[in-house]
Amino acid sequence: MISQKMIKLINNNSVIRAMFEEGNRLAKEFGRENVFDFSLGNPSIPSPPSVNEAIIDIVKTEEPLALHSYMNNAGYPAVRETIAKSLNKKHGTAFTESNIIMSSGAAGGLNVVLKTLLNPGDEVVVISPYFVEYGNYVGNYDGELVAVPANRVDFQPHMETMCQAITKKTKAVIINSPNNPTGAVYSESTIKELSKLLTDKSNVYGSPIYIVSDEPYRELAYDGTEVPYITKYYKNTLVCYSWSKSLSLPGQRIGYIVVPSEADDYELIFDAASIATRTLGFVNASALIQRVVAKCIDEQTNIEAYDTNRKLLYNNLKDLGFEISEPKGAFYLWLKTPGDDKDFAKAALKYNILVVPGSAFTCAGYARIAYCVSKQTIENSLPAFEKLANELGVKK
Amino acid sequence: MISQKMIKLINNNSVIRAMFEEGNRLAKEFGRENVFDFSLGNPSIPSPPSVNEAIIDIVKTEEPLALHSYMNNAGYPAVRETIAKSLNKKHGTAFTESNIIMSSGAAGGLNVVLKTLLNPGDEVVVISPYFVEYGNYVGNYDGELVAVPANRVDFQPHMETMCQAITKKTKAVIINSPNNPTGAVYSESTIKELSKLLTDKSNVYGSPIYIVSDEPYRELAYDGTEVPYITKYYKNTLVCYSWSKSLSLPGQRIGYIVVPSEADDYELIFDAASIATRTLGFVNASALIQRVVAKCIDEQTNIEAYDTNRKLLYNNLKDLGFEISEPKGAFYLWLKTPGDDKDFAKAALKYNILVVPGSAFTCAGYARIAYCVSKQTIENSLPAFEKLANELGVKK
Repeated sequence: MISQKMIKLINNNSVIRAMFEEGNRLAKEFGRENVFDFSLGNPSIPSPPSVNEAIIDIVKTEEPLALHSYMNNAGYPAVRETIAKSLNKKHGTAFTESNIIMSSGAAGGLNVVLKTLLNPGDEVVVISPYFVEYGNYVGNYDGELVAVPANRVDFQPHMETMCQAITKKTKAVIINSPNNPTGAVYSESTIKELSKLLTDKSNVYGSPIYIVSDEPYRELAYDGTEVPYITKYYKNTLVCYSWSKSLSLPGQRIGYIVVPSEADDYELIFDAASIATRTLGFVNASALIQRVVAKCIDEQTNIEAYDTNRKLLYNNLKDLGFEISEPKGAFYLWLKTPGDDKDFAKAALKYNILVVPGSAFTCAGYARIAYCVSKQTIENSLPAFEKLANELGVKK
Repeated sequence: MISQKMIKLINNNSVIRAMFEEGNRLAKEFGRENVFDFSLGNPSIPSPPSVNEAIIDIVKTEEPLALHSYMNNAGYPAVRETIAKSLNKKHGTAFTESNIIMSSGAAGGLNVVLKTLLNPGDEVVVISPYFVEYGNYVGNYDGELVAVPANRVDFQPHMETMCQAITKKTKAVIINSPNNPTGAVYSESTIKELSKLLTDKSNVYGSPIYIVSDEPYRELAYDGTEVPYITKYYKNTLVCYSWSKSLSLPGQRIGYIVVPSEADDYELIFDAASIATRTLGFVNASALIQRVVAKCIDEQTNIEAYDTNRKLLYNNLKDLGFEISEPKGAFYLWLKTPGDDKDFAKAALKYNILVVPGSAFTCAGYARIAYCVSKQTIENSLPAFEKLANELGVKK
């Protein structure tokens, strides 16, 4: 028989696939424009034109053999240096190329970091609701996932529960701010409290607990909300960044890992992560796309468009009487469902609205509404949401 | 402490790194053109111009959002269909898109396949000498590597030894033809014997043993040597292909997995491998490069240039008295070292010749000489090889 771990994943996968197929069926029956698909975290804003210009420029000017050849597993030193300098300028850090490892998106980076850190049985704390792939990533390296609920007001991590969840087996805490699925941005005071807690616990247990900061949404923050740069508050932070959202490049698989020099076991971690990049089969992040992101280091996607969507959908759904914690980042609304979240998703389907039930993020009683769609889709969906609110007896 | 598995790899890695650094030191001291670096399997022939033309054409014509967005984890259906048709035309197979999963090169494909197949303790047979990364890939999924020596005449697998090595725990046999490091191409009779052996053993143990065919060198065969297409001989074959060598694209990480419909557990394997592509963090092979290889499906690198190198180096080293089994594929010579292989590599270094000792492929007493270099480098190296032969007392 094939891998038993994989058989389990196939069974879990069928729920999401069923939903995806239902969306396609609805689109076929009613036309794509009459289906309000808020289920996918796929950027709706095209990359800035400079991305395609960079690709063409690089292909036309780079020496052909060098353009497509291998490089260090960690990536081109010049690209890593460009990234380090950009981070230093934005955040007042002091990184060099020796702190940056290019990765195949944040998903690739997270796998490399967990492969680097975990011994079998090590615990990794996540804050629920959370992106369920974390469980698979941790399971790949025989770690144990420990989920700690965020508070239910603004979905910041709850320090007392965190404190109880951390044991001498805890090797890492994965955080994700701006957050998928809640849209929460962890405040500076949250980061300070978390840093203090982990410093204390590391001292008590005599071994470092790492923060693994999953940051595909770093630039997507609204209303002037600050997104603290975690390495400045806690030295044992490994950042996994991705350009999937900030440059709308999810299909090209490009990101990086930050390993701060002051992190415990810095040298071991940097070397191990470079080698893990190779032995997991990534070998290196795409040579061409590495050069592209370096050339576009000061570019970003049209965040205002997402913000317009956010306000439009949030305000209208609030007006309809839905209960939502105002999202400050990413491109998700996290709605408290009037009843069971799976029933809510089913009821929404009747009006051609696709959302993901909170259970898919291990947090029943909520639904994730991804507003990375066209403004037109949101506008067209509002009457459907109104019918849904009426059916469910949501009070204005 | 970080992952103990990774600590071991860091220690192993230092040997190769030391060699790489020695090469750089020599280049600095004597000039890159006076160092004969035969240590790396990095293509020396640029990609055909159609590759860069395809990149520019795709970027200019594809809708920007679609160009960079996510797709199915298995890859674009149209790209997979193009590959299936190309294979069918070349090999008389009957594949469709449902038999193809796009991967991040063969290294990515091998990890996905092993993740899909292996339960802890499953054995994977490899034929030595072998690419040592196989050990790491198998170890990633807690499999056990079992190495079986090839014969020492033409480095085909030795069936009697294979027969003894296969147990009820054997889940897969990795083969690599054309072979790194020996340059051997497995003959049709080898493949037929191996297929018969594995069919018999699968029947005896009541569970399928898969061939995992690692094929980055498939197109690099010389003197009209046929490279049998393994799925035609053995249904339980999973092919891991890469364009790293055939289109000189190693830095872009692009390849595919073939899962034949007639393979046992076809559907489970196809689904699991698609999901493993996601959960290992690849998510999908680069969107842009997928489209590029589809557009360049009938292109290939300048094989004649490698063949010229092969003949030039092989004939001259034979004339100097070195013992070499004539390589029929890939871009490596496998030389029997007059004494200890590490001593040979050290002696070669004195003449600015870099080769990899056979021990690095778990086969002492040999050295791998990668002739994917310029013809000029080979011509310039011949006097150095002559001095080496004289020093070692090699008889003409």
